[in-house]
Amino acid sequence: MAFGLKIGACFMPYFGRISRVSSTGIQLIRCQSIVAEKLVYSEYGDPVKVVRQEKENLPAPKDNEIVVKMLAAPVNPADINTIQGVYAIKPPLPSIPGNEGVGEVINVGSKVTDLKTGDRVLPRANGWGTWRTHAVCDAKEMMKIPGDIGTVEAATMTVNPCTAYHMLRDFVNLSKGNTVIQNGANSAAGQNVIQLCRAWGITTVNVVRNRDNIDELKAFLTGLGASYVLTEEELRTTELFKTSVPKPKLALNCVGGKNALECLRHLDKGGVMVTYGGMSREPVTVPTSALIFKDISVRGFWMTRWSIDHAGMPEQTEMFKDLSNMYTDGSLKAPVHKLIPFSSYKEGLENTMTVKGFTGLKYIFDFQS
Amino acid sequence: MAFGLKIGACFMPYFGRISRVSSTGIQLIRCQSIVAEKLVYSEYGDPVKVVRQEKENLPAPKDNEIVVKMLAAPVNPADINTIQGVYAIKPPLPSIPGNEGVGEVINVGSKVTDLKTGDRVLPRANGWGTWRTHAVCDAKEMMKIPGDIGTVEAATMTVNPCTAYHMLRDFVNLSKGNTVIQNGANSAAGQNVIQLCRAWGITTVNVVRNRDNIDELKAFLTGLGASYVLTEEELRTTELFKTSVPKPKLALNCVGGKNALECLRHLDKGGVMVTYGGMSREPVTVPTSALIFKDISVRGFWMTRWSIDHAGMPEQTEMFKDLSNMYTDGSLKAPVHKLIPFSSYKEGLENTMTVKGFTGLKYIFDFQS
Repeated sequence: MAFGLKIGACFMPYFGRISRVSSTGIQLIRCQSIVAEKLVYSEYGDPVKVVRQEKENLPAPKDNEIVVKMLAAPVNPADINTIQGVYAIKPPLPSIPGNEGVGEVINVGSKVTDLKTGDRVLPRANGWGTWRTHAVCDAKEMMKIPGDIGTVEAATMTVNPCTAYHMLRDFVNLSKGNTVIQNGANSAAGQNVIQLCRAWGITTVNVVRNRDNIDELKAFLTGLGASYVLTEEELRTTELFKTSVPKPKLALNCVGGKNALECLRHLDKGGVMVTYGGMSREPVTVPTSALIFKDISVRGFWMTRWSIDHAGMPEQTEMFKDLSNMYTDGSLKAPVHKLIPFSSYKEGLENTMTVKGFTGLKYIFDFQS
Repeated sequence: MAFGLKIGACFMPYFGRISRVSSTGIQLIRCQSIVAEKLVYSEYGDPVKVVRQEKENLPAPKDNEIVVKMLAAPVNPADINTIQGVYAIKPPLPSIPGNEGVGEVINVGSKVTDLKTGDRVLPRANGWGTWRTHAVCDAKEMMKIPGDIGTVEAATMTVNPCTAYHMLRDFVNLSKGNTVIQNGANSAAGQNVIQLCRAWGITTVNVVRNRDNIDELKAFLTGLGASYVLTEEELRTTELFKTSVPKPKLALNCVGGKNALECLRHLDKGGVMVTYGGMSREPVTVPTSALIFKDISVRGFWMTRWSIDHAGMPEQTEMFKDLSNMYTDGSLKAPVHKLIPFSSYKEGLENTMTVKGFTGLKYIFDFQS
């Protein structure tokens, strides 16, 4: 969705430099400061209780700074856990929550060369604080993405699609016809795994918990490109790997406990299990024989660490280019979501804490509504 | 120990080609076949019951063949498990047991160039069958080792020292001052880990089960070069890693269960736990958070697979060269052992099945006694 500057809106740009072309040529418009709305919390705890909305007068951008107007930012489970103080990263307080989101550059400092007004950008670092209408920041904190990617797709690009991308690329060499097995396949990352594998010609065996609307869920995941969808019970007795499907070289685990073990047992010799979540709250159990005689490796992946380790590096640029192309050509789709106005932020917090529906409907703040 | 041909012994070399120098020059001696004694089993089961001793007339070596007279061969737990039929490798039956041992070349075929009479050799492959007095085999099956390594050291070189060597080298980059933690530190491989680490300047934290003679065991392992020896209970409350000892980059596990988890918890970020045994018969349990947020990897190592994958490759030669040098310079010592005549093989089988003493006294067949 295209976004134009709303001159005259309650948060007015302060352009001494930003200009627009009129019939008489380049013309400066009047300078006025921006009043940003932001969410903030000063203590860890129940998000609905500790998060409050505040206003902030933003200064004009200095030399290497830019002004970003946020367009959309999702509420992810990790955001909730961070506010609760139970996540691996505890930001210094007070803190603006929100690790993911897309913005538009609406003003640039005099020394900024890489970005210009109208560019769509994503924060490079985790913990940047996307739950605010505007921000002034160093241009280096933002990365330009193509303008033709949908706003929702761009806003939800840096966590789950990137997680899926790296888990599929960084641990084993997958070729067309190889198999990947994953549990919690209806998770946001799981859905991205399905789509990436479909695009890359990799067979996916997708394990989900049984539920009332299981046929509906199977149809949904198959529609995304899942090769096979099995319930946990079906996995235990499946003959799939005895017939036409090669044993998986990679297992992706966001559940833990018995189900992770069940996936691990199907792995081919030398296979790798990558854990990126632990929904069952049970640890990963690995039989000694699988480690010694089957050469199974058990690893973990955390996109936040990857982003910290690779901020601004060519690998990061390449990843976003690949993913952008896949959004553009339709290989990747936005997650199932609900857009809500920023003022309704409590709805987003509450519903992300008690995930509803089989795909965990993602709540996204729409700063333009 | 030097070994000379016993001309006139019950198993007589058949020299058409092997010659000895007399005062009148090179002189052929009479050709006679060798009667080898060997252990063999034709069904899996209780080693004491299924293993029997047999005689075999050996043919003369053909073009690329050699005749090896075994000097010494240990009884390892894996040999017992293989005969029981509970090991990962089930050799076709009937089979000659014994995966490890040192021999001397006593005759060579006409086309053999790499080996000569008097060379000391180790079988390259696991499962070669070392529990026999003599064998005729292809020269490629054997690897020459320096003659100045003790017979016991050479006979026990291919399993435990090699396991320790690769676990310490193949999973993380260790430098002087780094720390390795290991459980079952009194195991045969564990003792080699201690010695190799001492030689390479690496701190070892060695965990053992508490027992009556714990002080004696601690003194024994410290004498081998252990930096620290802790009981499992002491490990749970240790302040070691809060003070002067850097957190381990590598954990070696041959126990499993709670103790493996306890070792894993002390690992530094990005650390690796390598499992090579499972004495507790409990699996390895890994907390999800350790995988995701601490980037801990859980791997396995099996020397047999390494030997299969690297048979005859430069890495294998380099490893044996390194270990040979360490035996020669005194960095590595033979395991605590008891030499027994081949005819007393049942004593070796029985006592390896019920490991006695804190270091699991290794029984070694002495074919020269």
